[in-house]
Amino acid sequence: MLILMKPATNPDAVAVVCRAIEELGLVPHPIPGATRVAIGVTGNTGPVDETPIRGLPGVVDVIRVTKPYKLTSREMKPDDTVVVVGGIRIGEQRPVVIAGPCSVETREQTIETAKRVKAGGAHLLRGGAFKPRTSPYAFQGLGEKGLEILAEARDITGLPLVTEVIGVEVFEAVEAVTDILQIGARNMQNYPLLRRAGKSRKPVLLKRGQSATLEEFLLAAEYLLAEGNRNVILCERGIRTFSDHSRYTLDINIVPELKSLTHLPVLVDPSHASGKREMVVPLARAAFAAGADGVIVEVHPHPDKALSDGRQSLNLQLFADMMRGLERYVPQSESEPALVA
Amino acid sequence: MLILMKPATNPDAVAVVCRAIEELGLVPHPIPGATRVAIGVTGNTGPVDETPIRGLPGVVDVIRVTKPYKLTSREMKPDDTVVVVGGIRIGEQRPVVIAGPCSVETREQTIETAKRVKAGGAHLLRGGAFKPRTSPYAFQGLGEKGLEILAEARDITGLPLVTEVIGVEVFEAVEAVTDILQIGARNMQNYPLLRRAGKSRKPVLLKRGQSATLEEFLLAAEYLLAEGNRNVILCERGIRTFSDHSRYTLDINIVPELKSLTHLPVLVDPSHASGKREMVVPLARAAFAAGADGVIVEVHPHPDKALSDGRQSLNLQLFADMMRGLERYVPQSESEPALVA
Amino acid sequence: MLILMKPATNPDAVAVVCRAIEELGLVPHPIPGATRVAIGVTGNTGPVDETPIRGLPGVVDVIRVTKPYKLTSREMKPDDTVVVVGGIRIGEQRPVVIAGPCSVETREQTIETAKRVKAGGAHLLRGGAFKPRTSPYAFQGLGEKGLEILAEARDITGLPLVTEVIGVEVFEAVEAVTDILQIGARNMQNYPLLRRAGKSRKPVLLKRGQSATLEEFLLAAEYLLAEGNRNVILCERGIRTFSDHSRYTLDINIVPELKSLTHLPVLVDPSHASGKREMVVPLARAAFAAGADGVIVEVHPHPDKALSDGRQSLNLQLFADMMRGLERYVPQSESEPALVA
Amino acid sequence: MLILMKPATNPDAVAVVCRAIEELGLVPHPIPGATRVAIGVTGNTGPVDETPIRGLPGVVDVIRVTKPYKLTSREMKPDDTVVVVGGIRIGEQRPVVIAGPCSVETREQTIETAKRVKAGGAHLLRGGAFKPRTSPYAFQGLGEKGLEILAEARDITGLPLVTEVIGVEVFEAVEAVTDILQIGARNMQNYPLLRRAGKSRKPVLLKRGQSATLEEFLLAAEYLLAEGNRNVILCERGIRTFSDHSRYTLDINIVPELKSLTHLPVLVDPSHASGKREMVVPLARAAFAAGADGVIVEVHPHPDKALSDGRQSLNLQLFADMMRGLERYVPQSESEPALVA
Repeated sequence: MLILMKPATNPDAVAVVCRAIEELGLVPHPIPGATRVAIGVTGNTGPVDETPIRGLPGVVDVIRVTKPYKLTSREMKPDDTVVVVGGIRIGEQRPVVIAGPCSVETREQTIETAKRVKAGGAHLLRGGAFKPRTSPYAFQGLGEKGLEILAEARDITGLPLVTEVIGVEVFEAVEAVTDILQIGARNMQNYPLLRRAGKSRKPVLLKRGQSATLEEFLLAAEYLLAEGNRNVILCERGIRTFSDHSRYTLDINIVPELKSLTHLPVLVDPSHASGKREMVVPLARAAFAAGADGVIVEVHPHPDKALSDGRQSLNLQLFADMMRGLERYVPQSESEPALVA
Repeated sequence: MLILMKPATNPDAVAVVCRAIEELGLVPHPIPGATRVAIGVTGNTGPVDETPIRGLPGVVDVIRVTKPYKLTSREMKPDDTVVVVGGIRIGEQRPVVIAGPCSVETREQTIETAKRVKAGGAHLLRGGAFKPRTSPYAFQGLGEKGLEILAEARDITGLPLVTEVIGVEVFEAVEAVTDILQIGARNMQNYPLLRRAGKSRKPVLLKRGQSATLEEFLLAAEYLLAEGNRNVILCERGIRTFSDHSRYTLDINIVPELKSLTHLPVLVDPSHASGKREMVVPLARAAFAAGADGVIVEVHPHPDKALSDGRQSLNLQLFADMMRGLERYVPQSESEPALVA
Repeated sequence: MLILMKPATNPDAVAVVCRAIEELGLVPHPIPGATRVAIGVTGNTGPVDETPIRGLPGVVDVIRVTKPYKLTSREMKPDDTVVVVGGIRIGEQRPVVIAGPCSVETREQTIETAKRVKAGGAHLLRGGAFKPRTSPYAFQGLGEKGLEILAEARDITGLPLVTEVIGVEVFEAVEAVTDILQIGARNMQNYPLLRRAGKSRKPVLLKRGQSATLEEFLLAAEYLLAEGNRNVILCERGIRTFSDHSRYTLDINIVPELKSLTHLPVLVDPSHASGKREMVVPLARAAFAAGADGVIVEVHPHPDKALSDGRQSLNLQLFADMMRGLERYVPQSESEPALVA
Repeated sequence: MLILMKPATNPDAVAVVCRAIEELGLVPHPIPGATRVAIGVTGNTGPVDETPIRGLPGVVDVIRVTKPYKLTSREMKPDDTVVVVGGIRIGEQRPVVIAGPCSVETREQTIETAKRVKAGGAHLLRGGAFKPRTSPYAFQGLGEKGLEILAEARDITGLPLVTEVIGVEVFEAVEAVTDILQIGARNMQNYPLLRRAGKSRKPVLLKRGQSATLEEFLLAAEYLLAEGNRNVILCERGIRTFSDHSRYTLDINIVPELKSLTHLPVLVDPSHASGKREMVVPLARAAFAAGADGVIVEVHPHPDKALSDGRQSLNLQLFADMMRGLERYVPQSESEPALVA
């Protein structure tokens, strides 16, 4: 930690800051400069809350050197976390593809889609029973009935299931059925939900909030790990920017950065990141090329009849196009390291 | 609603879209153009989910003319909603000032602050007992003990209380104590929480999510109104942008736009919108000048010792500076209409 | 300057960085920590280019303590710069209002508008003869003929003139006529143009680029001051964000921050910052309340017939509404300091 | 074009708008709705400036159906433009790699780098002689001396040269030497420069402005084509967002969107888009996977000694890593179409 003081701060104010640092059990190192003093801080072995220091007279800025996340950090655990579900090793085998409808609409649509994505080579099945929707007037999902249909689709196809849990009050119902608990972008900072999921024995797929920084994303994952759940999968799903030619902007840069900073598996959701069906295939390829461990995509046998997100759902033809030759976009670890340092 | 077709779409595809419109109970009006056809749609009296149409072959874009929000709209209810709490008429009297500590830390700090902001002219008291924090290692609030302290501060000062509810599981505890339920930015799209708050008889102060569009903000409020709670107060608290000289960017433009589009009262939170104590006073003035009904600010008698947000809390001197002459920045409705149309 | 090294960097790499610092004429101060070394740097009296250090092995980050701008900084010149034009003292008297048409379209429209804004209380006249337009097919301004009309309008009304110079090749023509040279947002980093304007004896009104950080904005101004032109006026005109209810987002936060960091006058352009006529009046008031020295607004006697920016131009009635009581929104320096520190 | 009127607009106002449409030579089609009237417009064969209509009483919004760009559009020219330089066919052969130093610093560094990137498989040489720099105190390039060195490097290696032209005043000097004229992000809306480059017979590599929308980017290219230069290459180089883990955010979504909307070749600059050397290789692969025609990267034999952008320059080892197997990331047009429609 480094503390910057205002130019010409008097020595008493510097002494006050040094004492405050010592009260936190840390060691201050004043560095006198031409126009101002800075104070280096050492001795912290874990995250420190610098809030008390920020407010002291004369303090201009507090710069953290130690990252505030810990259990998610590769410094803490250098080797990759591999989340194993139904024999699929997420974080190790590549490419991993999770596919299925945005929402469960009917038993027929869900089971047809599940069979088709299984036949097409998907490794896991996705589908929403409880849907967070921007408008109170939009279709909100089939709820518990939807969970039953998803369970049946999982049993028929043998594909492990990923489905979203939108609140603590439905947690147990979803946990009982799913293989992986999804926490959506809108809930990335829903701390009661994160704490509850951290206590679950099911793996968690955590989506990045649409305006979360990398640090906030890893701190949300840190909530899960701090409660004891080490089976956490991160998922980039597009961020809010001024750029208006797609619904969100896929932050492809975060893929290599996450692979470098954390040991957790990193997925990409090109369906939500673009909002346009015709972008999904190129973005899925780009995700693998950038080092992602997997993708999660929406597929609908008849996107024109979908009750939600039809515009961004792949039809079965496009899904087949995506799967064909997808492994070619995965860097080969010997000669072409995904993680270049 | 207007539907744009691709150039040179064949007439059959246009006919399919027209039939789909009719199936929704609406009337299609094809408009042939030089290079493409557009289809005007009329007959909708309320919000329509255009999802089924977006996915049809040949459809390039669907442009909504009717706004998707309804109960929050000024078209539906032209006159201002006034939320009355403890004799304060939010949405009518101006300026309204809500002030208090970020978090309840101790009984002494809370009661001292409450007395001082009361003496300084504040109309309501704010304070957090349950704190949503980015890091699992940061101070998370005193919880139920904090609620007791806030209730005592309210009783001593007579200032109505605003405090945040961070989840359904603590809803009743907070509802029993507070005068206004605050839903924070991170929870603006926590739909189970919105539905629960919509069923409450206590007013709700809803903060804008840090990357929510105006439409998403009003749709979140629509969840509350659709459940029957008409006492909703909106609060702009800064958005995420590239601009890095302050923690967030206060979207001052949204103030006149909200006042024009909705009948609900509009507040501004200059403390969170800037993250810097020295910006709070100018931004509070700017908020009123732009037409806001009130502001909510953080005050701490000793910001350098605050356990959270000390950097953005006003000290008592700055709070006094802000209050002095604040009414001068409120536009006078006769000669200087806040709402210029 | 503080240099952060990777955890477990070997001492040799630290020594290499220390030597590189010494080669720049500076003094390194290694600060050993629990997991990594940081190196404090002192001895710099002016801006340092840290580029050579960023690339050294083991260096994670270089954090600048000293600001890279110098002549624009209030640390260098504590008292306000006042730009005096035609008896108007920009940076001292408040409110200052610059008003006029977006473009010069005809002699009649320009002179009528100039007379009307003069009668309404404007202090300076704005108007564009050379217009930078996003589309090559849009009206590009009347060019030199437009300058003649503006000069006539200035002579008739006595209002000093502000007009934009869009390139070096027309610099002398504009400089010969105008009282203040405007450099537009698209040209904020057009360095040949900045250098040329820095050599002029006419004051420069520099608009912030639509995605410029505060630091980039002040460095653009630094180009002007470094060439010898001290009469520089800064102007915030809205930034690009995800927020889609207005054309740009007025970054009102930058107003108090600029007033604190630089001695140069700060204006706001609410017309471009919103793109909507009905927002201009509330935003102009907010600008003054936040501490701005002036505003620049577009006015058109018949906005529905404007060849450019009609949607954001005030009509004469709205201009009169804005002017009435505007001084009430200016903080009074004794009791209500615009600059709260 | 579709014009939306306010609810309950009286028929006279609608008639006024219809007449204004007819005055533009177009045909209005009023569409009466439940609460408001919309007016469809047909008959436009090229771009229309809707400004006069936006300002009319009762008009809420004007929605363009016809794109404002024309010559750059794939609707106008369905087949790919191929820019041929020194036998390299940009827009047809893939992958194309442009590599070289950020700036020309010395003859030795430039020629060494040129030889090494040639040996490594680069197709063209990049290098800056005139450098636009944020700070007036940073190294500004060697200017004309730099051009001479670049010309020599080109002659020695046979690699065609790409170098930036930063203003009209140095245009002829750069044009005389270079094979491709680069217009940088800061100058994307420098219209005098675009017009001048549009009159050149040399191809132009146009970088996207850091906050330009897709439409603004294509309109900037339209300036070039409208002046007669059809050899235009587009380059995405990262956009400004809130995301702070990299210098810019590569907008990978724009790659398939541009390939769909325009016939011009599309490159990606992963060096500037990330600002971090270790991200360049994964992003270059992702660019090709998403359908880009080429990449432009910065390479420096000794990045730790670079006078500019050392942090983002590949060293020779990383450049070799990038080149090895790069063609594997290019979609194969038969089975894996880059452009999925």
